[in-house]
Amino acid sequence: MLQYTLDNFIVIPHPPLTTFATAILEASGVPQPIAALVAESLVSANLRGVDSHGVQLLIWYSGQIRAGNVAVAEAGKVVSENGACLVYDGHNGMGQWISNICCDHAIRIARDSGIGMVVARNSTHFGACAWWAQKMAGAGFIGIAMCNATALVAPWQGREKMLGTNPICLAVPGPQTFLLDMATTTVALNKIYKAVLSGEKTIPAGWAMDEHGNPTTDPQAALAGLPMPLGGYKGTGLAVMVEILCAVLSGGAMLTDVGGIRFTGKEMRASHMFLAIDVTRFMPMDEFVARMEWLRDTLKSAGPAAGFEEVLVAGDPEWRAEQIRRRDGIPVARGIWEELGKLAQSLNVTVPPIQ
Amino acid sequence: MLQYTLDNFIVIPHPPLTTFATAILEASGVPQPIAALVAESLVSANLRGVDSHGVQLLIWYSGQIRAGNVAVAEAGKVVSENGACLVYDGHNGMGQWISNICCDHAIRIARDSGIGMVVARNSTHFGACAWWAQKMAGAGFIGIAMCNATALVAPWQGREKMLGTNPICLAVPGPQTFLLDMATTTVALNKIYKAVLSGEKTIPAGWAMDEHGNPTTDPQAALAGLPMPLGGYKGTGLAVMVEILCAVLSGGAMLTDVGGIRFTGKEMRASHMFLAIDVTRFMPMDEFVARMEWLRDTLKSAGPAAGFEEVLVAGDPEWRAEQIRRRDGIPVARGIWEELGKLAQSLNVTVPPIQ
Repeated sequence: MLQYTLDNFIVIPHPPLTTFATAILEASGVPQPIAALVAESLVSANLRGVDSHGVQLLIWYSGQIRAGNVAVAEAGKVVSENGACLVYDGHNGMGQWISNICCDHAIRIARDSGIGMVVARNSTHFGACAWWAQKMAGAGFIGIAMCNATALVAPWQGREKMLGTNPICLAVPGPQTFLLDMATTTVALNKIYKAVLSGEKTIPAGWAMDEHGNPTTDPQAALAGLPMPLGGYKGTGLAVMVEILCAVLSGGAMLTDVGGIRFTGKEMRASHMFLAIDVTRFMPMDEFVARMEWLRDTLKSAGPAAGFEEVLVAGDPEWRAEQIRRRDGIPVARGIWEELGKLAQSLNVTVPPIQ
Repeated sequence: MLQYTLDNFIVIPHPPLTTFATAILEASGVPQPIAALVAESLVSANLRGVDSHGVQLLIWYSGQIRAGNVAVAEAGKVVSENGACLVYDGHNGMGQWISNICCDHAIRIARDSGIGMVVARNSTHFGACAWWAQKMAGAGFIGIAMCNATALVAPWQGREKMLGTNPICLAVPGPQTFLLDMATTTVALNKIYKAVLSGEKTIPAGWAMDEHGNPTTDPQAALAGLPMPLGGYKGTGLAVMVEILCAVLSGGAMLTDVGGIRFTGKEMRASHMFLAIDVTRFMPMDEFVARMEWLRDTLKSAGPAAGFEEVLVAGDPEWRAEQIRRRDGIPVARGIWEELGKLAQSLNVTVPPIQ
């Protein structure tokens, strides 16, 4: 992984970065409240250290907008609501705006029925999955979010790209005890890119196959090939589970019919699933919080395995990153900052001063 | 893996095996309808080729019953029902009997509200997770089942056993298109046992750690050590997700407080989660089935990776095994058959004739 040095990174506090991202989106034609929401969700990923889902996405988002692939002002609409189940059509609007509306529906239904399940079709990129599960958790619910995505991964035993990285996310209400947000591949594609960029000679076995479907530890062959599903057939099983709960149930695009932020001339047609569960239908909230804290503390009390200093629970690395980045600012790779600068210039947006 | 030969396996059709299993349970004091259900669920696992969750479990179940760890006639009761959410207390009854009642509640609630979520505490071993998700699918719902289990797995970066193999299962209604039933470890503990028994010198990297928390490829060291979570931190994240949805929400035993079928003098106190989703609240059933068939067929149309002949979708291996075993009978390892014979003799149960 690249070291943060002033040579290859700039550092910027999150408020001006959010303002800058909002301005880029508004100058691209995105209405103000939508631009502000998208910017806030992207910068939130940067704050959490998940830079793959941070402001660098603006480069692709703006490409999508320029190509006419996204209906920037579209809010979509409810297709059907039946008991605890709601189907939403995103009408190709900005994924974050569609997802925000869908989460509000899931929360409303869960408040009424104990559980609310919303599936959305014809949406676009919604940023980091964690943002949405956390939105539901912030309202007092267990939030589960999933989405299907651009076909980049072969099903287990196959060599054709058919499945997305199809993430699964679960967030709980209350203090920071557990936040799962994981792709169903062994590693994010981004890690293979990083290995290539930093000149590493090998990557671990199990990360990727070459273009012929042979397992490889060569970073270049991996990049030209396919990322591997998490743990083989289990990762594919989880990815297909996500495809069923998001795309089969929503009536949306499945497998290779899904576009992507790096394609132009094709609508993304992503599907999402948002499940809100009202904890207080099971037990009082303070009891739930106490049980979550016991669970986290007990897990973290385990003696560390060889080569590690402590047990980390899902969410720990990101909360630690957030504490540091809220205080010290967000490091952005200089290459990405230059791309954002060019984009800003083309849109007559002022680039904020940096440290 | 052991080859099926007449030397080391017997073969028995599933109807007399079910009758035999029922008789063993009844002679152990389990009331007839409960014994019949448990036997049917175990033999169903054998039929599907999942022998780890088949009749061999009778050896441990009967040990649990003899030790007074299970309340064999107990049906448990509803603790609370609130909207789409129900909490059940199994009162230490047979896990299958408790789970059957809980699935019926999930189905009833989903029929009423679109979604039904039932969490059970103080239950015992419920056999293969797939049986329960399939029960909900058989009633026309997407069924999701999970349970926590005996602490056998260290959390990622740790070396103390704290989490169970915590399985996740999803079944869909309609024809056989997809059935996921997976532990959240890289492999089932059973595979490490098999490697030892068949004299293999090494196991693949990523399967296990030794007792000090060092990754190992030595089968003996693995057996004395710990199975690894699926894909490292992601497997632990999924296992904790299961722990939250089953045990935190039900108010049941968590982590090392859970007993197990190989412990005596300690109640198991397993927790389960059953989620039923009414597909017809989203789209007509025939449309859902057509979409599932397209999804399966498209995945299976992918060219195979090097070393494979075809792409298999979750459920394929088990459905194939079931076709063969329904026709040709169920192979049972001779060692297990002898143990079952001794158990039968001690209970005055007649052992059925075998081929």
